[in-house]
Amino acid sequence: MSKKYLYQVLSEQKETFLPSVSVDCVILGFHEGEVKILLSRFMSNEKWMLPGGFVFKDENVDDAAYRILKERTRLNKIYLTQFYLFGDANRVDMDENQMILQKNEFGDQDSHWLLNRFVSVGYYALVDFSKVKVGPDEGGEVGWFNLNEVPALYIDHNAILDKAIRTIRRQLGYIPIGYQMLPEKFTMSELRVIYESILGKPIDRRNFQRRMLSSGLVVQLDEISKKWGVKKTALFSFNKDRYNELMEDGMLML
Amino acid sequence: MSKKYLYQVLSEQKETFLPSVSVDCVILGFHEGEVKILLSRFMSNEKWMLPGGFVFKDENVDDAAYRILKERTRLNKIYLTQFYLFGDANRVDMDENQMILQKNEFGDQDSHWLLNRFVSVGYYALVDFSKVKVGPDEGGEVGWFNLNEVPALYIDHNAILDKAIRTIRRQLGYIPIGYQMLPEKFTMSELRVIYESILGKPIDRRNFQRRMLSSGLVVQLDEISKKWGVKKTALFSFNKDRYNELMEDGMLML
Repeated sequence: MSKKYLYQVLSEQKETFLPSVSVDCVILGFHEGEVKILLSRFMSNEKWMLPGGFVFKDENVDDAAYRILKERTRLNKIYLTQFYLFGDANRVDMDENQMILQKNEFGDQDSHWLLNRFVSVGYYALVDFSKVKVGPDEGGEVGWFNLNEVPALYIDHNAILDKAIRTIRRQLGYIPIGYQMLPEKFTMSELRVIYESILGKPIDRRNFQRRMLSSGLVVQLDEISKKWGVKKTALFSFNKDRYNELMEDGMLML
Repeated sequence: MSKKYLYQVLSEQKETFLPSVSVDCVILGFHEGEVKILLSRFMSNEKWMLPGGFVFKDENVDDAAYRILKERTRLNKIYLTQFYLFGDANRVDMDENQMILQKNEFGDQDSHWLLNRFVSVGYYALVDFSKVKVGPDEGGEVGWFNLNEVPALYIDHNAILDKAIRTIRRQLGYIPIGYQMLPEKFTMSELRVIYESILGKPIDRRNFQRRMLSSGLVVQLDEISKKWGVKKTALFSFNKDRYNELMEDGMLML
């Protein structure tokens, strides 16, 4: 993020944004056998953070999340889901925010709006890694990290990430988690690796395939993978109709 | 709610509460074969609303929800779950709030804090109907309604209720929905009626029993119901250990 952009964000008038409410996004993608998370930071000397921001006074909170994500990923279509409202009174380390203001020459402004209490609406997005554009620009410096190698983040963002993963874990029964993260055709082990990363443990290969197929969510194609250097393996695809059907009924009632 | 209490709430200084953030609660119980919802209202001439309120400046949002629920239900233990942040810019009908201020002799105060924009954190609670104390008092007038006979509510509260039910419906796979709402021992048809009310449609009796038992969540007791006038039927109980186990693993990985 350029100094100029940072200045614009930090110098916004109190009157621009809805008081007390911010948005933070956990953005997950899949690349070369690893689940990745997209992080951003103000400047190269700051901590990495979840991409986030504030809500304009006349803007829907969901729209603010979309706007912020589009700025950072330059994706147009994003599957974005609210997962939690982080509302603890002491969740923001005000010393950390004070330090950002000082380092960036905003001086010791005790009344700066960044030093007020904010609750944060957590969203997660499952995105197609190959379509996200990352790199330093006016919209912020962003970079991908392996999900199991995330550094110490700004204020409570590690806890927000942890909550997102635990939420997705519980929702695995009805969230088509590979749908947004995989290409149209994929191998069963690619899909399994995504589930293993979210669950944080290995899954039995045969049981997984059996369950996926018997749920009707995944169908085997009449094709095999042709990647060089890869053993020929079956290809699969998602059944979107079946997914919509399951969403209607609630998973227990399959 | 007495006029005095209403006055206290409406006349709170802007400085008392966290700006922009409110809390609304969908409270469900089960009584005589019906799923019920607890509603409240300021005065007998006002619309019914979801029990809700505001967050003190130094209070965690979750704690605010507990405080508000305890005031209204006089329950001490409540299984309370956040389900959504309602953040649309135009969600509150300001005319409706203006009218409440006028009717209650707060005059035409264009700058009253009730006329600011609020996002609302939605919680749902599954409670033991028999333990809730309802009736007019300082904490607000509250009453139970059948879930399928809810009247037109204050501002967007029908939409909040609808979202809660749809969320619980999707979560049926891992939320032990009867656990808080039924006595320790219950019949399978009592449990089934709760699921049917949430799903909004009948469920096959045999399939339901088979699924509940095969999940391990529900176990059949070596007892039968002895209610007068009721055909003798088997009694069941929840297996809390199995529930905790399922929560750990995510339901799809059973």
